[in-house]
Amino acid sequence: MAVKLENKYLYSFISSEEYDEILPQIKIAHKMLHLKTGLGNDSLGWVDLPNTYDREDIKKINKAAQKIRHDSNIFIVIGIGGSYLGAKAAIEFLKSHNYNFLKKNTPKIFFIGNNISSGAISELLEMCKEKEVSINVISKSGSTIETSIAFKIFREFLENKYGKEKAKERIFVTTGKGSGILRKMADEKGYISFDIPQDIGGRYSVLTPVGLLPIAVCGANAEEILNGASAAGGDFQKNDIENNICNKYAAIRNILYKKGKQIEILVGYEPRLYGITEWFKQLFAESEGKNSKGIFPSASIFSTDLHSIGQFIQDGNKIIFETVLQIENNSLDIVIKKSKNDEDKLNFLEGKTISHINKKAFEGTVLAHTDGGVPNIILNLKNISEYTLGYMIYFFEKACAISGYTLGINPFNQPGVEAYKKNMFALLGKDGFENEKEELEKRLKNSER
Amino acid sequence: MAVKLENKYLYSFISSEEYDEILPQIKIAHKMLHLKTGLGNDSLGWVDLPNTYDREDIKKINKAAQKIRHDSNIFIVIGIGGSYLGAKAAIEFLKSHNYNFLKKNTPKIFFIGNNISSGAISELLEMCKEKEVSINVISKSGSTIETSIAFKIFREFLENKYGKEKAKERIFVTTGKGSGILRKMADEKGYISFDIPQDIGGRYSVLTPVGLLPIAVCGANAEEILNGASAAGGDFQKNDIENNICNKYAAIRNILYKKGKQIEILVGYEPRLYGITEWFKQLFAESEGKNSKGIFPSASIFSTDLHSIGQFIQDGNKIIFETVLQIENNSLDIVIKKSKNDEDKLNFLEGKTISHINKKAFEGTVLAHTDGGVPNIILNLKNISEYTLGYMIYFFEKACAISGYTLGINPFNQPGVEAYKKNMFALLGKDGFENEKEELEKRLKNSER
Repeated sequence: MAVKLENKYLYSFISSEEYDEILPQIKIAHKMLHLKTGLGNDSLGWVDLPNTYDREDIKKINKAAQKIRHDSNIFIVIGIGGSYLGAKAAIEFLKSHNYNFLKKNTPKIFFIGNNISSGAISELLEMCKEKEVSINVISKSGSTIETSIAFKIFREFLENKYGKEKAKERIFVTTGKGSGILRKMADEKGYISFDIPQDIGGRYSVLTPVGLLPIAVCGANAEEILNGASAAGGDFQKNDIENNICNKYAAIRNILYKKGKQIEILVGYEPRLYGITEWFKQLFAESEGKNSKGIFPSASIFSTDLHSIGQFIQDGNKIIFETVLQIENNSLDIVIKKSKNDEDKLNFLEGKTISHINKKAFEGTVLAHTDGGVPNIILNLKNISEYTLGYMIYFFEKACAISGYTLGINPFNQPGVEAYKKNMFALLGKDGFENEKEELEKRLKNSER
Repeated sequence: MAVKLENKYLYSFISSEEYDEILPQIKIAHKMLHLKTGLGNDSLGWVDLPNTYDREDIKKINKAAQKIRHDSNIFIVIGIGGSYLGAKAAIEFLKSHNYNFLKKNTPKIFFIGNNISSGAISELLEMCKEKEVSINVISKSGSTIETSIAFKIFREFLENKYGKEKAKERIFVTTGKGSGILRKMADEKGYISFDIPQDIGGRYSVLTPVGLLPIAVCGANAEEILNGASAAGGDFQKNDIENNICNKYAAIRNILYKKGKQIEILVGYEPRLYGITEWFKQLFAESEGKNSKGIFPSASIFSTDLHSIGQFIQDGNKIIFETVLQIENNSLDIVIKKSKNDEDKLNFLEGKTISHINKKAFEGTVLAHTDGGVPNIILNLKNISEYTLGYMIYFFEKACAISGYTLGINPFNQPGVEAYKKNMFALLGKDGFENEKEELEKRLKNSER
């Protein structure tokens, strides 16, 4: 298996009786997911996706990616939330968190349309001057405001630079089927476009063209990612805790939550895992953070953050548990050499690799944090590869669904995301929000004493 | 004042009686800090630093920065925790989170020695090929292992590239006075070096050469940062809550904590604030996370993360409050233009600036989250400038000290950071840790069933 779960550091925190006690709930959750009888069962397209994926679609993605690579020094992904976090995570994991700084024959990849920052947009426009640019706008609804604004600006940039006709060849649209604005524009203007299945939500969409097109542009093998996810699907069929790490992870999380552990920190010991931890945060926060419940998902890269939040984890408020991503085989490595007279006091490390030292940091930290009352779940990743990435993605997706059902919520909606949007539209004076506008402006004023 | 605190959205969460009730504790904390009678009173060098700073030191920093800019395309800062977070925060805030991608006549700045990643080190070495490079190694003790390893590798890189003599001119050392390894190496080899005062801890050191040298390299005005901090010091003298925003912020945090708010999210609406939020996390986590207490500090950039953890904040577990950094004057801006037939459905925004839309997102979100039971503290930053940065840094430093004393802990030590280091050294076979090694290895093995 490309991902293994170790619970060997949990024995002082969870007894075997506790696994027995939660087993019935886990079994029900697993059954609800497989029989599609639970809440949100119109959003389960991701469950069988790795097996049912049309291989023709992969060809279309690879062809588009090839064209983008051929035509561009800079490739811009325009999307927010689930429309960029998965691709960013995959590119960092497979290539590097330094991807844009590396020498390579693939384009630099920037993400925009994920904020409302004039500075961020202006700077990217400036960087695109005198470069060859293609863009991929991604929005399931087609009307996400952050994305729409950035798309408007970069579409105009391309049209000014290349002319309307030639610009078309540099605009790739990924959106839902149906009658959304983006779908309509793509059809009318003749942009190359990709479908997001209606039964797959944003945070579950990385294995659709949403993630796979940008990932293919960086030169990674999209099909291998699906192969890994497909193998994971096969491995996570058993409805028990012992033989299904999705169920096991869901069980551990819910047991710890009921014992007062309200924060989960996903930890990686390599900076290339940063994107994965950010993707994870959305997946679990949007799935489980509802009805005043949920484990707050946080993220850290160690040993970096052992010198930031490490003190808190070790000695602070005991509301934390950690899930640690550990990469077993790291190909890039450096050996520590001896120094004359041990002038830098590092000769005790002579002949050791940096990966070895990193592993000892990991082992030392797990024991230290366990001693500090912080449960540690270990996820061993076999290597850095497309296959392992796909496997891990599917693991987290399914584990999140099981965990959410066990918590007693609908893991597939996100009603709370609408609240700020509604207020923002009203305050911006969008048609149809006139009453709300007046009321909100009154509140903004009246808050003042 | 360059930073203003608004508590107008807190009225439904905190009554005026509650401020009265906590006032005595705040007054004691403020007094302990000013009279230097509290725990950790040997680490209060930062309190008067902005006023007592030797202006000759600034000249030395500026001279070194000028030389580095003149000699280098790439400047590498080698340090972990407080030895890099402040500089990174300042450079992102003053220049941009895209600093390394912008066209400029100052060097690219990379941070290393803040992890044990062979990939991160190898890639940076590769990037340095055929470039002119200078480095600044920063460690108060002089023996931080992450930093020592990276320094060893990049020192060797420079010596191979330029020869031992010429390499010396490209190595800048920032370390404590006394007998540390780095101090000794600097003296023996003749590197230009800077002192870190003994009475200033890592997370409080950004206004020493630790932060100011790298900040000066990016072209920012170090003296103006100190001027802002100095003005802040003057503004935060009153020992009450109404007229001292440090005391007010400390009071609010402690009141909310006692009411069950165990997570504080520092939010910024511009990506350039990302570094500040990371610096903040260390400052508060290391200062307050002890004796099983503390508010867990987290960080987010909005509206980006409204599509990630936004759902959780709005509807999830009610253990969160937010502190929002809002920049009042944003110079870079873009105006939304009309589209033909309103094809992108954005014509309701015609003539509006992106900053205006961002502000409405902020207002809409504050009201939405407040409705969701999440208290919001607003910190208004006057502008993006060195002066405001210094003011804000001093605000957080002093507020953190007052808040920590109010919580009843020593805000200036970090005993928990040693736990993982001790285990790691033992597992790596360092002299003097033989007994621990055996015991730890047994534990790593015995955890397995």
